[in-house]
Amino acid sequence: MLRASSARLNLTVATMSPKALAAEYAVRGPIAVRSGEIDRDLAKGSTKYNFKTTIKLNTGNPQNHEQKPFTFPHQVVSILENPALLKHPELFPADVVERAKFILKETGGVLGAYTATKGFPFARKSVASFIETRDNKAAGRALGAVDPENIFLTNGASQAATVLLTALIDGRNDGLMIPIPQYPLYTATLELLGGSAVPYYLDEKKGWAMSAADLEVAYGKAKDQGITTKAIVVINPGNPTGQVLDRAILQDIVDWAHKRGVLIIADEVYQENIYAPGKKFHSFREVVLTSKGDIPRNVQVASLQTTSKGMFGECGRRGGYMEMLNVPADAMAQVEKLCALHLSPNNCGQIMMDLMTRRPAPGDASYESFNAEFNGVYQSLKERAGLLVTELRKMPGIECQTIEGAMYAFPNLKLPPRFCEEAIKHNEAPDFLWCMRLLEEQGVVTVPGSGFRQVEGTHHVRLTILPPEHEMKDVTQRIAAFHSQVIAKYS
Amino acid sequence: MLRASSARLNLTVATMSPKALAAEYAVRGPIAVRSGEIDRDLAKGSTKYNFKTTIKLNTGNPQNHEQKPFTFPHQVVSILENPALLKHPELFPADVVERAKFILKETGGVLGAYTATKGFPFARKSVASFIETRDNKAAGRALGAVDPENIFLTNGASQAATVLLTALIDGRNDGLMIPIPQYPLYTATLELLGGSAVPYYLDEKKGWAMSAADLEVAYGKAKDQGITTKAIVVINPGNPTGQVLDRAILQDIVDWAHKRGVLIIADEVYQENIYAPGKKFHSFREVVLTSKGDIPRNVQVASLQTTSKGMFGECGRRGGYMEMLNVPADAMAQVEKLCALHLSPNNCGQIMMDLMTRRPAPGDASYESFNAEFNGVYQSLKERAGLLVTELRKMPGIECQTIEGAMYAFPNLKLPPRFCEEAIKHNEAPDFLWCMRLLEEQGVVTVPGSGFRQVEGTHHVRLTILPPEHEMKDVTQRIAAFHSQVIAKYS
Repeated sequence: MLRASSARLNLTVATMSPKALAAEYAVRGPIAVRSGEIDRDLAKGSTKYNFKTTIKLNTGNPQNHEQKPFTFPHQVVSILENPALLKHPELFPADVVERAKFILKETGGVLGAYTATKGFPFARKSVASFIETRDNKAAGRALGAVDPENIFLTNGASQAATVLLTALIDGRNDGLMIPIPQYPLYTATLELLGGSAVPYYLDEKKGWAMSAADLEVAYGKAKDQGITTKAIVVINPGNPTGQVLDRAILQDIVDWAHKRGVLIIADEVYQENIYAPGKKFHSFREVVLTSKGDIPRNVQVASLQTTSKGMFGECGRRGGYMEMLNVPADAMAQVEKLCALHLSPNNCGQIMMDLMTRRPAPGDASYESFNAEFNGVYQSLKERAGLLVTELRKMPGIECQTIEGAMYAFPNLKLPPRFCEEAIKHNEAPDFLWCMRLLEEQGVVTVPGSGFRQVEGTHHVRLTILPPEHEMKDVTQRIAAFHSQVIAKYS
Repeated sequence: MLRASSARLNLTVATMSPKALAAEYAVRGPIAVRSGEIDRDLAKGSTKYNFKTTIKLNTGNPQNHEQKPFTFPHQVVSILENPALLKHPELFPADVVERAKFILKETGGVLGAYTATKGFPFARKSVASFIETRDNKAAGRALGAVDPENIFLTNGASQAATVLLTALIDGRNDGLMIPIPQYPLYTATLELLGGSAVPYYLDEKKGWAMSAADLEVAYGKAKDQGITTKAIVVINPGNPTGQVLDRAILQDIVDWAHKRGVLIIADEVYQENIYAPGKKFHSFREVVLTSKGDIPRNVQVASLQTTSKGMFGECGRRGGYMEMLNVPADAMAQVEKLCALHLSPNNCGQIMMDLMTRRPAPGDASYESFNAEFNGVYQSLKERAGLLVTELRKMPGIECQTIEGAMYAFPNLKLPPRFCEEAIKHNEAPDFLWCMRLLEEQGVVTVPGSGFRQVEGTHHVRLTILPPEHEMKDVTQRIAAFHSQVIAKYS
């Protein structure tokens, strides 16, 4: 209906910002867009596909896969939205009513206004206290209080990452060290800012391990090209790679960041999603604060968290926080100014983050039912992670590392050379072609490894572990059917 | 407690992005920050100020000024948050229950997941239908359907503006035409993108009118400097200036935009806030679609709306939409990609936008009570706008244009030369000094005109009209007391 881009207009592909055009975000890239078209076809009754529904494994979006929202936070929120419900306390457990009254008191009943740029003070106190408790427990000793002034509530972790990169990066001489494979928000934002990606590689054969020695090599290479590395992104547990980093490697990273004066962007959004026996989450804050010498005062960390992951899975809420360690007050004020351009983080996300970091306590009326819901989700995620890997490993030419944490499998696809040649002939990455055909033929929506960057010549695919148990069989059968056809046809 | 910036660290003022440092956002700038410090002092019982509370007139934040949220949307939302409440339909009017059931059906009950990048389809349909009805009514004839695919739900209008500028602007050769005075999000975002502001001036003496002839002059001047003007921002009703543009000038702007192939960014977030008799809102969409020749097909418009303004005043919700007119599909896909970097707009804001554009209809159980609440807010805003202007005009050396619409007074301050000299000696804009002292001495938080840009040598201040009637006397007395002291001391 609309014409193709015309040079007389200004919002056209021919006249747009080249940086905007260059930014790529595979998680919602061409394959996700195509799946939307197919969904619209199917809704209109189209019978031209081999399947009746698509299955979306491209985003970690639990509530789209039958995961139910938790009862306690939603009961509290329903009262906050409609305080007249307080006239009917018999409809709610006592701790729900109490919590709603507490929040109404803390906010003076004003829940719909812009808040302070950093968010509601009461919610920032809950976050500060959550971080303190978590890290004191992991360290086995008190590491000191978290100042709520160091907490920024954000619209998901994505906004936090964007603000940090905007504060740090201006043009190609500014570098950001990123893991390969990485979460594509980082490279996309770097493109928009014209900055340089300084890659360090995760070692697939060792379960996607990383080594501090590699960091120094990457840093040096960038320096030789005139690039100043300003920060390093560490995603732990890994996305898309699912590894949980051992404390010893976290210590190496901290020591290295100290030596080079590099900010650590600690993408710790999957900190509750750990399934592998013996694996434990350690925050960068805890490691920095238990380090020797002047490290506790001189390594900067910005750590990110979200309501979207963990067991809450409240993705649509766009709740998040960013905790700043060792950032001087004047720089903090600049970060606050950047956040203030969008006034304040959405209040519903702020409240969910409060509820996620301040859960029912032993003795509370909702304690047991909340824990039952929480553990139910955890156990189910753990089982699905195992099930998906087991099934993927049965497929010829597919290797898959153990999913220690997070929400994704990232198997390695050994694709027949003729398949790769065909992809390259179409100017497409081989794993992109694999994912697109998997969608067209079996309706399964995934993200090609090339969207996360990967070692040259290797091919991967990211799939969430989220299909409910009763769908997992169908999902893995669809993938196996498609993949064996590829192997048969192109080998 | 934290050290000043050290060159060994990377998140410091000395090592940050110069673009990030240069961005200014006066609405939450140093005066707002200082008011936060004073609030903390007062909360601790400090008696060193002449006042016991600060009054925040710096942001258009109605629910912070005793405006109550509307009952109907919040009843609906309370059910969506906690569908178990459907077991108690006796607690709600029938249309609330019906609407909640409708939304639960449309979403399959999945309200907590990431949505499509553009937002819930059902909410985009409500927005499309609202726009259609609004414009058909204003035009007196049917202008054609709005395709929900042209609607992006956004986190407030701020996200929409940011995405648009990111799509358009890359470096100093790309220009954005902005009114002077303007809303500072535009200049701040231009700084971040390294783009050029191409100013056109509103004529204060004529009630902040604008003229299309000025646009051509500004465009030409920019062109001579090698700047391509890609878009023009028109804020109607005006922020901070409060004028409501006549249809004839909108037509002139459209004709000019057609001639120059410039996208119109229609910041129409105050479209419901019109108080002056005889003034009426006309959308750019309506004017474009009723224009002659190929204009209806060839002038691009991106129009912005939010849940924060109008009568809803749901600022904290961060709900908004952006409607695209005449944007080719491939460029639209690029804009969608930029939105997708943050996954999807927050669901609570999306739902509020749905409820704001699809209100109780005649015959619905909530129709009368909703209208009573709505009209109550409208009448009160209108009265407060009049009251504030009347009081400001009584003060010596203050001139104030009529507030035809929006939520602000933007009076002209004739400051004594000795006061201005003192400010300049401190390297401050005179109106900044005026605002800072007004805060220190009387606790009133305002935004200096210099934060919005203004004609060189003039001084202004922006104040919201939002203090409730019973506080307005106190507010204007504080300002009058401070201002007469300035005049007495420096004249």
